Amino acid sequence: MADRKIISIDGMGGDHAPRVVVEGLERFAQRRSDLHFLLHGDNAKLKPLMAKAPTASPRTTIRHTDKMIAMDAKPADAVRRGKGSSMWNAIESVKSGEAVAAVSAGNTGALMGQSMLILKKVNGLERPALAASWPTRTGVCAMLDLGADIAATAEQLVEFAIMGQAFARVVNGVANPRVALLNIGSEELKGHESIREAARLIRASSLQMDFRGYVEADKIGFGDIDVVVTDGFTGNVALKTAEGIARMMSDMMKNALRSGPVAMLGALLVMPALKKFRAKMDPRKVNGAVFLGLNGVVVKSHGGTDPIGFEQAISVAAGMGESHFRTEVEDNLKRLVASTSAAASVAAVSEQAAK
Amino acid sequence: MADRKIISIDGMGGDHAPRVVVEGLERFAQRRSDLHFLLHGDNAKLKPLMAKAPTASPRTTIRHTDKMIAMDAKPADAVRRGKGSSMWNAIESVKSGEAVAAVSAGNTGALMGQSMLILKKVNGLERPALAASWPTRTGVCAMLDLGADIAATAEQLVEFAIMGQAFARVVNGVANPRVALLNIGSEELKGHESIREAARLIRASSLQMDFRGYVEADKIGFGDIDVVVTDGFTGNVALKTAEGIARMMSDMMKNALRSGPVAMLGALLVMPALKKFRAKMDPRKVNGAVFLGLNGVVVKSHGGTDPIGFEQAISVAAGMGESHFRTEVEDNLKRLVASTSAAASVAAVSEQAAK
Repeated sequence: MADRKIISIDGMGGDHAPRVVVEGLERFAQRRSDLHFLLHGDNAKLKPLMAKAPTASPRTTIRHTDKMIAMDAKPADAVRRGKGSSMWNAIESVKSGEAVAAVSAGNTGALMGQSMLILKKVNGLERPALAASWPTRTGVCAMLDLGADIAATAEQLVEFAIMGQAFARVVNGVANPRVALLNIGSEELKGHESIREAARLIRASSLQMDFRGYVEADKIGFGDIDVVVTDGFTGNVALKTAEGIARMMSDMMKNALRSGPVAMLGALLVMPALKKFRAKMDPRKVNGAVFLGLNGVVVKSHGGTDPIGFEQAISVAAGMGESHFRTEVEDNLKRLVASTSAAASVAAVSEQAAK
Repeated sequence: MADRKIISIDGMGGDHAPRVVVEGLERFAQRRSDLHFLLHGDNAKLKPLMAKAPTASPRTTIRHTDKMIAMDAKPADAVRRGKGSSMWNAIESVKSGEAVAAVSAGNTGALMGQSMLILKKVNGLERPALAASWPTRTGVCAMLDLGADIAATAEQLVEFAIMGQAFARVVNGVANPRVALLNIGSEELKGHESIREAARLIRASSLQMDFRGYVEADKIGFGDIDVVVTDGFTGNVALKTAEGIARMMSDMMKNALRSGPVAMLGALLVMPALKKFRAKMDPRKVNGAVFLGLNGVVVKSHGGTDPIGFEQAISVAAGMGESHFRTEVEDNLKRLVASTSAAASVAAVSEQAAK
């Protein structure tokens, strides 16, 4: 049993925890018979739920704690006083090497803060990022950073590009991801200096990356870009805008289809086709944002998700946990450092020559 | 005829100009019999088209110029060498007082640059902004800035709030607009310092404004905010994200409804209901972004719009041109200056006292 793989789960995080967590776990266990699970949380609450999860139960160990992080906790408090909580312990299991990845549907800020504190940043990296999938006409693309941080320097955007590329390979199975920076408008108006500088850095580097320049937000869905790189604030706004519009449109469409007897009869007939459409746009299918750039995998599930969504978040964690993600990122970071120092040497030489 | 109102139109701007421009003008003229029009552009091209626009023709004067701004022109060049072009002349007619507003579907950067140069900023204002409407469950809300500018200071965000409030009154007919700043995530993580500072400034001011704090991008569509204030980069990304998702969803839905004979039969029955839905989400109905904060009204139509969309852009120009927009903004700017200087005096006094 030495190399059995374990996923560590925060049993108490999320709006409908622990029920949704356990039901999602059971669904995932039915799909993957080779993985084991550590479930952190209140034994008294988890045990009766696990009794109704016959597939997951034999492969799940409950680790009791009665401490948990409230969904509305202030992140700083959650980090300072979070030790021993179900969230904290879920991350600790990754740190100790017992589990290959952790999943939580709890408070985002708390999870980010605790993960940073416990797992620490990968050596040589300036800043971790939060990445998630975005539905397109042809499948999904990865987007990062979504971490709600203030702004990103050009160097940080380049790091995000490197991590996003590896994420698209590992989680979305794209062999050679096409990477682009999110930007706006026409050539001359094009936004922040940091974005233009990041494009220059990537082009000048010896990164092995299919870099496609800029992508505008209305073209993300076309499916010809696999990784969209942006700062955390902009990424967060874009993701939430997309969620909001998608929800509004499907609600309005539902209302339209219920607006009268003829529409309702028609709706019956179009239902199977619409179901396929809705399955493709189902936000649960893209649930599971990953903190990239830490010494260990932590996946954040949407707090309000259902068992299908939580199952998907565990699946993302499993994909990341089984992958060579870290090696890939570290190799590319080394290439970046090498090309940056090479560029610096060239610059130094020309400067000397100019004297 | 002294107080007849004239709208000035760039006949040559847009992907399908001048055809779409003239057809849009004819549609608008059918709706509003009281307005007159100045149509700037190539007489040889405009005249035969106007011959097919019987309602608009008697109230339209063509002002010939054979110079026009290319859709892919560099904004800086278009400003430097734009004099005498159909776009330039359309704006000049507002400057001279001949027209109450100008409309163009041409190059955005060129239109912004020329408008700034010809009309100049309103006195006391730091920066103009581009505002447009955004569909919600209950109607529309106004969003600004969408101008693709780099970043916005707290003071500029406050100015945007003031202009957006007046825009919502004038263009969307909301008596007492609810204004909010676009922001992300939970209280403690909340983004840029400039946004938090803008909220403080508005709360501390004596502006007559129903200020509702922050709104997240996924909640814009709920319809409980009438004015969403953000910087030009973020606003541009959000707007384009929304456009992209809406287009992707309606295309996917169309494909679903054509996916087989049963779905197609059902589609026939649901069509009337879906048409109502699509009319509500029709991007043409929200066409027409306004440059706010200049000494005169300039409306930017989407470059690729059709006659219905261009008609809407003229309608926005008419609404702005007939309104007390400038007086409202100026009054509120004065209130802002008054409360800021009052605050400054208080600060100065406390500083004195502390010495």
